[in-house]
Amino acid sequence: MIIVGERINSSRSSIEQAIEKRDSEFIQNEAIIQANAGADYIDVNAGTFYKEEEDQLSWLVRTVQAVTDRPLCIDTANSKALLCGLREHKGKALVNSISMESERLKNFLSVIKNYPCRVIGLCLNDLGAPKTVEGRVEIADSLINLLIKEGFNTEDIFIDPMVHALSAEEQAALITLGSIKAIKERHSEVSIICGISNVSFGLPGRRKLNQAFLALAIRAGTDAALLDPTDQDMMTTIKGVEALLGEDEFCMEYISHFRNQRM
Amino acid sequence: MIIVGERINSSRSSIEQAIEKRDSEFIQNEAIIQANAGADYIDVNAGTFYKEEEDQLSWLVRTVQAVTDRPLCIDTANSKALLCGLREHKGKALVNSISMESERLKNFLSVIKNYPCRVIGLCLNDLGAPKTVEGRVEIADSLINLLIKEGFNTEDIFIDPMVHALSAEEQAALITLGSIKAIKERHSEVSIICGISNVSFGLPGRRKLNQAFLALAIRAGTDAALLDPTDQDMMTTIKGVEALLGEDEFCMEYISHFRNQRM
Repeated sequence: MIIVGERINSSRSSIEQAIEKRDSEFIQNEAIIQANAGADYIDVNAGTFYKEEEDQLSWLVRTVQAVTDRPLCIDTANSKALLCGLREHKGKALVNSISMESERLKNFLSVIKNYPCRVIGLCLNDLGAPKTVEGRVEIADSLINLLIKEGFNTEDIFIDPMVHALSAEEQAALITLGSIKAIKERHSEVSIICGISNVSFGLPGRRKLNQAFLALAIRAGTDAALLDPTDQDMMTTIKGVEALLGEDEFCMEYISHFRNQRM
Repeated sequence: MIIVGERINSSRSSIEQAIEKRDSEFIQNEAIIQANAGADYIDVNAGTFYKEEEDQLSWLVRTVQAVTDRPLCIDTANSKALLCGLREHKGKALVNSISMESERLKNFLSVIKNYPCRVIGLCLNDLGAPKTVEGRVEIADSLINLLIKEGFNTEDIFIDPMVHALSAEEQAALITLGSIKAIKERHSEVSIICGISNVSFGLPGRRKLNQAFLALAIRAGTDAALLDPTDQDMMTTIKGVEALLGEDEFCMEYISHFRNQRM
């Protein structure tokens, strides 16, 4: 399982303040604890800064890369901020994210083709996210074909089938789970990534619901998850499900996860 | 989801002592808390008493039925004890369990055909539980055909595909999950029941692993689970997965589960 650590996001007020004050130490600590907890990528998002997003994202990339060798996941809906982030980034970043929204697609493609990177494609077009598995799969097909045409290798492509709030849409989780399975069956070399916690928005017991959804999403074929790797319950769920699915010889990884927690 | 409350089992020392002392109040309290927590059946097991099992099981059936209208799950490997339990039981009990082990099958069939009951069939024969999905499905087919021939309705038949310890067998959970799906596809009217907690035997973090396995087992098609209904985390997992699978309109059951917890 590929873990993208989601903590450095300016929608969290402590992070927004730290970025505002250019508090390197605070941000770097957030990066280090996530890397130590098992993050493969560190997500950086300064989306709440609007006009200053370009500057803030550049600073975040520099600040985080100064203390960790994990590649970053550059998380923005703004192609100019993306360009700033990619310019600063050493090594191969993960771009979060393009979609089939025509304006975003055009602007993002013109940036990402000039940098060595992996890219997340959201199952979203100008009409939003389709309410059917077939609709999401169709967008995934388009994104994958388009990225391959642009020169991306399949192993550098991640598809996010989109996770909506169950509180607003009874079929939300089922559509995501069905899409994960269907996309993975059609494109086995492409990775599937999910932002797990959206599912529980507006409901009580969010942590428990997130854990149950994570288990189902891994079973359906998810390869990567955007989550808080310092959340031991989520990490235990991942290690546990990997063991349950026979992917962990003698449950060694699962057992060592518990040993590490105790220390 | 049909919940069979597993707490009244003499393998738990507090229960064994209470049975030994004929402490009705203790046993009845265990029955009441499980019924209040949502158990559809109350399991009663006096298996550790060997020669006295018949007496003890009869006493348990009387004692528990005096305080709850939930039917009991009469849990024994001894056909004479089963007979005593069924004789005492008012209404339609759930028999736990027959199997394709030839001796047990012969003895149990001769008892259960004389009482109105539902019955759990284990995917087990004289060679033990097969290490493949195909092997388990074959036993399920035999059990179902045999029970129908004996006059049971399909809705009174439960199949337990058997849950083994992951610590001893890397493929244990996968075989169970595959069997649940395959048996359910072949026999949609038969119920699938699992004893969830066996999976984590010998491993750390048992509660978390049980919750993850429960989520996967429900997704695979499990209709019933033998578990401790006073374990709020397990019950939350059930309500959560039902909501995730679109089986809970407006998440009403899930939300009311949380309201009830707080009260």
